[in-house]
Amino acid sequence: MDITAVNALPYEEFVNIFGNVVEKCPIITAAVWSRRPFVSLNALDAAINEFIDTLPESGKEGILRCHPDLAGRDLQSGTLTWESREEQTGAGMDTLSPEDASRMARKNEEYKKRFDFPFVICARMNDKANILRQLTERCQNQRAVERTRGIEEVKKICRLRLQSLVLTDAPNKL
Amino acid sequence: MDITAVNALPYEEFVNIFGNVVEKCPIITAAVWSRRPFVSLNALDAAINEFIDTLPESGKEGILRCHPDLAGRDLQSGTLTWESREEQTGAGMDTLSPEDASRMARKNEEYKKRFDFPFVICARMNDKANILRQLTERCQNQRAVERTRGIEEVKKICRLRLQSLVLTDAPNKL
Repeated sequence: MDITAVNALPYEEFVNIFGNVVEKCPIITAAVWSRRPFVSLNALDAAINEFIDTLPESGKEGILRCHPDLAGRDLQSGTLTWESREEQTGAGMDTLSPEDASRMARKNEEYKKRFDFPFVICARMNDKANILRQLTERCQNQRAVERTRGIEEVKKICRLRLQSLVLTDAPNKL
Repeated sequence: MDITAVNALPYEEFVNIFGNVVEKCPIITAAVWSRRPFVSLNALDAAINEFIDTLPESGKEGILRCHPDLAGRDLQSGTLTWESREEQTGAGMDTLSPEDASRMARKNEEYKKRFDFPFVICARMNDKANILRQLTERCQNQRAVERTRGIEEVKKICRLRLQSLVLTDAPNKL
């Protein structure tokens, strides 16, 4: 699908297709539909990012809290969204050694207890070792730093999900 | 569940239970969790309303666009959320006469074409005849008026969904 086809979509189809580019937040996609037509994939991506940036801090925490744990109970019980499952299994979250799985679970709990939202990272841009290392390191951050960092990761995830749905822009539109 | 039990919920359980009090917008519930403890059901309801009010106009349109049509394809195909199905069938949307069903479909399309978001009304507070009458009347409004009106209805729906999940406050907490 190219950007011209995207711009021609009624809101219902637009939300059906793009509603989960930010995990479980179809309101964001539904809101930016008001900004069409988009000149490019980048423009659609930018509109989503701008909408996220206008939210109060509690809203940004809300976005993070709509994300599942990495290698958490939703992966185990098969209740992840299709996109999250692809990303988590791609990063090997379903084939952790018992030691790594237990360390991941422990660190996820520590992270959530400290920050009141889950650890979010763009799994497609990281491998197993990297994810475990960053989870451990990021547990040491201040809350405001992690909120900002988590939202940066949400935007990376969104960008990759968009790219898998819309043809990447031609170079002259980048 | 009383408000003390609500305040003790970790965010994951809170979002699991209350995530759909605003249709398909768990981000809102997840955001207001930051505001706990709530002194009462009214305080939780007020926090949700305040969050909605802080959203830009596009965000309010986004909320409306997360709502299904009344007596629309989601009701027919069985893909409504549990809450919406209860509300729509309670108002008789599944037992419209062929004439009313066809009028409803036509007016829904007219409404969406005019406003770029769906007609939202608190079905539990209205019967079949009322819903059809209001849909017809509200098609005549200005867009900004309907956006505001739609959001008022979202808040009524939210209030009733909350009440079905949390014990109504004792009179001294109203």
